[in-house]
Amino acid sequence: MTEDGLLCPPINQVAGHSATGGNIGPLVDKAGRFYKPLQNNQRGQNEVEFYKKFWADQTIPPIVQDLFPRFYGTTSVQTSDETGMCEYAVIEDLTYHFPHPSVIDIKMGSRTWYPGATDEYIKKCLDKDRETTSALLGFRISGLQVYETATKTTWKPDKKWCKELSTEGVRLALKRFVSTNPFSETDPDGSLASIINGDPGGVLSQLLDLKAWFEEQTCFHFSSASVLLIYEGDSTSITEDAHRSGVSVKLIDFAHVIDGQNIIDHNFLGGLCSLIKVISQIMADLGMKLPKESLLTT
Amino acid sequence: MTEDGLLCPPINQVAGHSATGGNIGPLVDKAGRFYKPLQNNQRGQNEVEFYKKFWADQTIPPIVQDLFPRFYGTTSVQTSDETGMCEYAVIEDLTYHFPHPSVIDIKMGSRTWYPGATDEYIKKCLDKDRETTSALLGFRISGLQVYETATKTTWKPDKKWCKELSTEGVRLALKRFVSTNPFSETDPDGSLASIINGDPGGVLSQLLDLKAWFEEQTCFHFSSASVLLIYEGDSTSITEDAHRSGVSVKLIDFAHVIDGQNIIDHNFLGGLCSLIKVISQIMADLGMKLPKESLLTT
Repeated sequence: MTEDGLLCPPINQVAGHSATGGNIGPLVDKAGRFYKPLQNNQRGQNEVEFYKKFWADQTIPPIVQDLFPRFYGTTSVQTSDETGMCEYAVIEDLTYHFPHPSVIDIKMGSRTWYPGATDEYIKKCLDKDRETTSALLGFRISGLQVYETATKTTWKPDKKWCKELSTEGVRLALKRFVSTNPFSETDPDGSLASIINGDPGGVLSQLLDLKAWFEEQTCFHFSSASVLLIYEGDSTSITEDAHRSGVSVKLIDFAHVIDGQNIIDHNFLGGLCSLIKVISQIMADLGMKLPKESLLTT
Repeated sequence: MTEDGLLCPPINQVAGHSATGGNIGPLVDKAGRFYKPLQNNQRGQNEVEFYKKFWADQTIPPIVQDLFPRFYGTTSVQTSDETGMCEYAVIEDLTYHFPHPSVIDIKMGSRTWYPGATDEYIKKCLDKDRETTSALLGFRISGLQVYETATKTTWKPDKKWCKELSTEGVRLALKRFVSTNPFSETDPDGSLASIINGDPGGVLSQLLDLKAWFEEQTCFHFSSASVLLIYEGDSTSITEDAHRSGVSVKLIDFAHVIDGQNIIDHNFLGGLCSLIKVISQIMADLGMKLPKESLLTT
């Protein structure tokens, strides 16, 4: 148990496993930590091993470390339904500093399987990659929530809605993510794109830092990992903490990270280049300037 | 028929279809043109359409045009076995200026199928991508020949040899491609890597130009296309023409190019980044400097 007392289900999770259908779900404490249940089938252990290896690697520059959640080890917690103790990985609660976070979970790569996996697993992933935008776009949206300041409400479509998005639907969702009227299905204003995506330290600049690292690093291949984009959605209640945090770009979900074998992760990198391009196209369509480093025109 | 008289089978082709097993193969003339038979099943027509669209596109910069074969239209040729007339696409003979070309054909992309293809076609491609290095490395070697000046002979392994290469085998083959002793299975010297790969105008610099274009262009998706690297293998007989040509980097095989739908070709781009990295690693292992723009370290 932790010294911080109560653990609650996270309210700002937009994708991934949750405590439904008899599954044990993730928890958060009041001190900024996220507890992710270790799945039985080796995946949880694989994720913990990744976190240990990543944070022990002295060669990874701080600018890249900032794009990953902090890792605080593992812990056992007594589950509330008295099924017993459950083992959790303890990582940074990425939405902790945001009173009303707008969050999008983007699963990266045109394929979510990896060479060496079983035929059955590959088929399952391949089918999903073809049914969603992964194969075509190089990424898919797994979940999102966008806070609307004017109405003090959050637009949070369900998993099925995300799964059925076309490539044009993904473009529109990424525009709604940076709109002050995210509920609008046909005419989101995209008016936050310039600040959220284009500012120094914004989404594009952080994604370009990530891209530069992926062009070099050959240690890790990130099958089925996601890029999480987070910003404070309530423009009237930006606390000092949230302001300091600014726009947060983080990689998550490392249950299927495998050894890079001295090869770059061309699957993640290709999807990342595509995501950068789509975000740049949204900005160009709105007549907004791109950051100088992006070099990307439409 | 052409005004240049005799058409012969090309002697420097290292991969792709040839006149065996009852197939009609490609031909070359004495004026630097390569005749590629139009395959019946729409593929040939698709390739011709690509060439027309590409060379009509005024927005493609000359530096990128130089990375593609010139296109001279289509023509009918009387086949020598008297099966009748055959339709050919007429393109640039890429090895024309090289007396003893060293050539490598690298099929790009971790997947050679494209979204929208039939299940049967996808399965066939997927199996090949998993059996070869495509899925792991993002590319595979389809064929190569390397001229050895000292013995005046050409090392030209067969298709089966290429198909069975491991990722380490691919690295070694790329090193043998820039060695003065390419026949050596265990200790190729790699002594040409600095000139062929590293020079301004060499392989890496041209691949980086190609990469910059692929980060921008959303018109074409190049499924199953190849990058061809060509240089004059006989150091003692470099003609003025061959010298002027230098190292040639060209894309070929456009039978499966599809419309980009405003999305970058992340599959080709990912494989290209991986190829750039592998070539950079070979040079770094040999203690050779990388071109400044590559930014790639191992």
